[in-house]
Amino acid sequence: MSNSFGTLFRITTWGESHGKAIGVVVDGCPAGLELGGEDVQRELDKRAPGQSEVTSPRKEADKAEILSGVFEGKTTGTPISMVICNKDADSSKYEKIKHLLRPGHADFTYQVKYGFRDYRGGGRSSARETAARVAAGAIAKKLLAKHGITIIAYVREIAGIKATKIDFKEVYKNDVRCPDRNAAKKMEHAILKAKNSGDSVGGICEIIALNAPAGLGKPIYNKLESDLGSAILGINAVKGVEFGAGFELAKMKGSRSNDEFIVKNNKITTKTNNHGGILGGISTGMPIVIRAVVKPASSILKKQHTINYKTMKQETISVEGRHDPATIVRFPPIAEAMAAIVLADHMLMAGKINPDKLIK
Amino acid sequence: MSNSFGTLFRITTWGESHGKAIGVVVDGCPAGLELGGEDVQRELDKRAPGQSEVTSPRKEADKAEILSGVFEGKTTGTPISMVICNKDADSSKYEKIKHLLRPGHADFTYQVKYGFRDYRGGGRSSARETAARVAAGAIAKKLLAKHGITIIAYVREIAGIKATKIDFKEVYKNDVRCPDRNAAKKMEHAILKAKNSGDSVGGICEIIALNAPAGLGKPIYNKLESDLGSAILGINAVKGVEFGAGFELAKMKGSRSNDEFIVKNNKITTKTNNHGGILGGISTGMPIVIRAVVKPASSILKKQHTINYKTMKQETISVEGRHDPATIVRFPPIAEAMAAIVLADHMLMAGKINPDKLIK
Amino acid sequence: MSNSFGTLFRITTWGESHGKAIGVVVDGCPAGLELGGEDVQRELDKRAPGQSEVTSPRKEADKAEILSGVFEGKTTGTPISMVICNKDADSSKYEKIKHLLRPGHADFTYQVKYGFRDYRGGGRSSARETAARVAAGAIAKKLLAKHGITIIAYVREIAGIKATKIDFKEVYKNDVRCPDRNAAKKMEHAILKAKNSGDSVGGICEIIALNAPAGLGKPIYNKLESDLGSAILGINAVKGVEFGAGFELAKMKGSRSNDEFIVKNNKITTKTNNHGGILGGISTGMPIVIRAVVKPASSILKKQHTINYKTMKQETISVEGRHDPATIVRFPPIAEAMAAIVLADHMLMAGKINPDKLIK
Amino acid sequence: MSNSFGTLFRITTWGESHGKAIGVVVDGCPAGLELGGEDVQRELDKRAPGQSEVTSPRKEADKAEILSGVFEGKTTGTPISMVICNKDADSSKYEKIKHLLRPGHADFTYQVKYGFRDYRGGGRSSARETAARVAAGAIAKKLLAKHGITIIAYVREIAGIKATKIDFKEVYKNDVRCPDRNAAKKMEHAILKAKNSGDSVGGICEIIALNAPAGLGKPIYNKLESDLGSAILGINAVKGVEFGAGFELAKMKGSRSNDEFIVKNNKITTKTNNHGGILGGISTGMPIVIRAVVKPASSILKKQHTINYKTMKQETISVEGRHDPATIVRFPPIAEAMAAIVLADHMLMAGKINPDKLIK
Repeated sequence: MSNSFGTLFRITTWGESHGKAIGVVVDGCPAGLELGGEDVQRELDKRAPGQSEVTSPRKEADKAEILSGVFEGKTTGTPISMVICNKDADSSKYEKIKHLLRPGHADFTYQVKYGFRDYRGGGRSSARETAARVAAGAIAKKLLAKHGITIIAYVREIAGIKATKIDFKEVYKNDVRCPDRNAAKKMEHAILKAKNSGDSVGGICEIIALNAPAGLGKPIYNKLESDLGSAILGINAVKGVEFGAGFELAKMKGSRSNDEFIVKNNKITTKTNNHGGILGGISTGMPIVIRAVVKPASSILKKQHTINYKTMKQETISVEGRHDPATIVRFPPIAEAMAAIVLADHMLMAGKINPDKLIK
Repeated sequence: MSNSFGTLFRITTWGESHGKAIGVVVDGCPAGLELGGEDVQRELDKRAPGQSEVTSPRKEADKAEILSGVFEGKTTGTPISMVICNKDADSSKYEKIKHLLRPGHADFTYQVKYGFRDYRGGGRSSARETAARVAAGAIAKKLLAKHGITIIAYVREIAGIKATKIDFKEVYKNDVRCPDRNAAKKMEHAILKAKNSGDSVGGICEIIALNAPAGLGKPIYNKLESDLGSAILGINAVKGVEFGAGFELAKMKGSRSNDEFIVKNNKITTKTNNHGGILGGISTGMPIVIRAVVKPASSILKKQHTINYKTMKQETISVEGRHDPATIVRFPPIAEAMAAIVLADHMLMAGKINPDKLIK
Repeated sequence: MSNSFGTLFRITTWGESHGKAIGVVVDGCPAGLELGGEDVQRELDKRAPGQSEVTSPRKEADKAEILSGVFEGKTTGTPISMVICNKDADSSKYEKIKHLLRPGHADFTYQVKYGFRDYRGGGRSSARETAARVAAGAIAKKLLAKHGITIIAYVREIAGIKATKIDFKEVYKNDVRCPDRNAAKKMEHAILKAKNSGDSVGGICEIIALNAPAGLGKPIYNKLESDLGSAILGINAVKGVEFGAGFELAKMKGSRSNDEFIVKNNKITTKTNNHGGILGGISTGMPIVIRAVVKPASSILKKQHTINYKTMKQETISVEGRHDPATIVRFPPIAEAMAAIVLADHMLMAGKINPDKLIK
Repeated sequence: MSNSFGTLFRITTWGESHGKAIGVVVDGCPAGLELGGEDVQRELDKRAPGQSEVTSPRKEADKAEILSGVFEGKTTGTPISMVICNKDADSSKYEKIKHLLRPGHADFTYQVKYGFRDYRGGGRSSARETAARVAAGAIAKKLLAKHGITIIAYVREIAGIKATKIDFKEVYKNDVRCPDRNAAKKMEHAILKAKNSGDSVGGICEIIALNAPAGLGKPIYNKLESDLGSAILGINAVKGVEFGAGFELAKMKGSRSNDEFIVKNNKITTKTNNHGGILGGISTGMPIVIRAVVKPASSILKKQHTINYKTMKQETISVEGRHDPATIVRFPPIAEAMAAIVLADHMLMAGKINPDKLIK
């Protein structure tokens, strides 16, 4: 497997859904950053399920414990290890379907690839692993904040309903993490409707990085789009990613898609942002704008045909349990975390954060 | 910079648009693969401009010379170095605009990042570098072909005109690399119309990998989507990438997006392919389906406002020269190359190609 | 920092001497390997102090807990996380000398590099971290054993006293891990003599890998000597490494140092082993022979001059506490672990262990 | 294979001894460094054979051509590609012995590993490849010189004869690259004596880095000893490496091997340098001192027994041709190059060279 991500700011995650614990080691955070459990908790709480009717009623009051790398309230430059214990989970329902390949899930591919798997709750392929990313991202976000960079993600579209107003302050005021209060209500309604019919919905998340300096990104093969794209596409259920005007560019003319350069506050910038803050793989200083599509949750109550891989016979499956009808709703903090990790890494690689300079 | 890509099958490219040469070193190809200049030339010819009215009339009869790694017509397992000499290019037109930031180009970001750049023809940021990728991809494609895997890319959409029929045999019969003969004609027309008004158009390319075995991909952080996405997003002008049903998944229900497992020819597969051949970051054995959006060419004759970074004053620019009005048309062989490199790498990483076993 | 090691078989360690815990994440072990806590414990016990008069009387009954990657007694191919809790350690004696730079230790360089450090017990620079390596090495050793490869390390020389007989069975029968019973007694005596005068001694460890197949190693830059050398030189207190005849080669003629090729049991091998099992950076199938020099323990009771980095004044230091007078004695299991990790990695990279094939 | 070395300052070499050319791509040199062919030539000339009776009489007037990455006499931050054309070499003498495994050479291991090889002149395993490293090292050395760091390597011992005086100015005044004029004469004599009897000799090279700042090195796994050791052990014929007092430490007491800290010119440093400028894997600011043992040249005229791998029968071999009787003599510039590459990489990784800041 490949469970590490990043070059100079680097995370390594581990753990299965129904194992003893999950966790992450963060390597490359410079010394001197004030860091406490509460910094990590704040982000974990944003991801936690059981917060509303539109998410799984499971209670995962994830608590991350910092086991290393922090001394007297500050990072020391050494690796920061965090562990989140798993609650005793009831694995019995997985026992029954352990030979049935849940459609849309990774059961089949893990079975083919590894020949042996922890089938309980998806094991390593479970979205539970993303809690470890969120914990790591909390550190990246704090490091970036020290350098004036903010990252915010929110739900842009669910089940065809689009947010038309972007008010950052609204995002965490509603259960669907939408920056548009009216759209949020419609989205909630759509989710509940799907849930009640044993079904699920997909959506689009938008991630914005504000105040990232011009000059981040390493062409030719670690362009900012490549690394951010790789990070976001690596999150469970993501099947597409776009930057700036994205797929709309297919329909534009060059005279419209090109963003004119202008001078503003004595600095060169662009008038519009079809380029999503990145040109030639390098940040321009404009907001970095990313969108990701999250497929509908694969675990649905509705009956589906599938195969029992032991018998090679067709069977019918109904994935019981307390599943999220719209995983997109829990996606924004995970996307923020991964984007933050990439940007922290690039800040280091571009020499804008000095790895060996004490943060004050 | 970061000019290497891949882990076990690894390429390193170099060279500027108006420098002496460009080239690539391919490391990790096993010994015994029959390889000659003609294998590389075939792919380079697919990328070459000057083939029709819809591309730049520049003649770049790229010839790659293999300088190492091949002995008696076969690879030896050692690095394969290829060089493509640049023709004497007229750099004078770039001299005039060397302080003007061409909108949509990387002039600004390279200037900010490196403080000094070879401004002639875009230097390292030029799409000319992609010829080196195509040369490397030719080797990857040949290696994959030995294992039954084929990769084909084509234009799916230009200026809002979509291919509705997919006939692989049509792709290289028309100038726009479209698998739908009728759509191709409309696309050509749209390109010429834009060209005549000094403008350019964008489009969407679809890349298909056939017969890739189930089991490729390394979760959690080198999922197939992450690595393919990173590779495709690293190609000039790409601003988005999607897999399978892609952004359409935002509007689907889970009961529809989930692909049912079935048994076919005694093998487990899926009935539909909304997952684009990848589940949990690992290939399922179904065709791998990728789409990328290519923005309209940035070099346009039409006047645009921009900034002179020496004077910090606004000026007007008209990018003269023989530019492509639709770079998307030359994109498919580059996309094929990058996808092939990723899949060759993953075939090695999954133990499906043995790095130390002589190919016969 | 850089706390990961390896390419396909990869470890990431974390933790400080006097922190809550130390640990390691092992990534890349194929699925199906039987693995239990006792496999890891056996190796940890070999490294533990407090086993005799020639080591520190500290009791570190290290217990590693496996938190992930193992299901129903077998590895699943997912990352294996192990945690070793630190006993409550008395940090008060470090408090007194926290501004004094202990000669031979990393206090000065960590202070200079990071600007802030956990000074208790050496923090991250402590040899305590090597327990995590030993835990990871236990897995590598078990994986190698499945493929017939054995690794054994022992003390070859202490304080000028050399082992002249190599009897593997003797190694763990004496307290100094020496394969020569008579030499062992003299070594013990020398250590105790140094200890009683508040001093310490150095030595040489020899590491042998038996039955490694011909063909391991990746020239030009990951030759087996490079990777084994890097691994061994990365262990605390090591200041030199040599292979086969090593530094003696400086005095030899080519006609003597060249090992003649012969045929034995129908296989090509060499008559002698001055090359230490590696030619051109690739294993030949002969025993791989490595020697490492371990400097005398830096923590000594004897008074030494040093600098207080706060006051920049000279002071005298006597490093109190229960320190090892001869760290070399605890070195062999650590060296075995690191050598095993390198060889497991190269077995995977050479395609001799298939990463995706279930071990049976 | 693995033909790339380094993380942020990274080289990729390619080419076979009797192929068309050899070369290197250097990635990661910041923009603005003045660089011309003469900078590279100077180093290549130090390595060239045919300079005296003690080296091969072959004439390899290597000329490196810079193909990219330099514009108007300065680096641009993009990859620097250099090519050295091979002279037409007579491969006929290798034709005769192509199935004979030359003792001490990599013929056997390359044959076993890759199953197919370019046997002419050793192909990729030839020391000819080191010319590419020297070319890359020239850039690293120039970059380090800009930051006040100098690297010098010289022959410390040949055939048991040791240099007892270290006068840097003498090194390139004699044919054996020895800093001790008297020892040099004896060494030359020993080499010629061996040569006349169809034999060869080995030796020890010492490499010193002056003015490297304190703080370089990335514990735990990229300690300076690990990375320098890996680099030096990767050079052909090296079988051991040591730092500071090296293997002598095995015989020392801690009270002697520990280097006392002192204050000098208001800076903390050490009184002695048994630690070779590195503590805890991090540079202390003292001279970095490395020694490497180079085995006697494997190609000797004297008859040796070996195996024909086609017939599996014993045969006798006498390696004819114009070979170096003491490859150690040509080793110092290669060692300087590799040490310089490691230190340049670590200067970047420690934030002491900013990758994105124009050098002035």
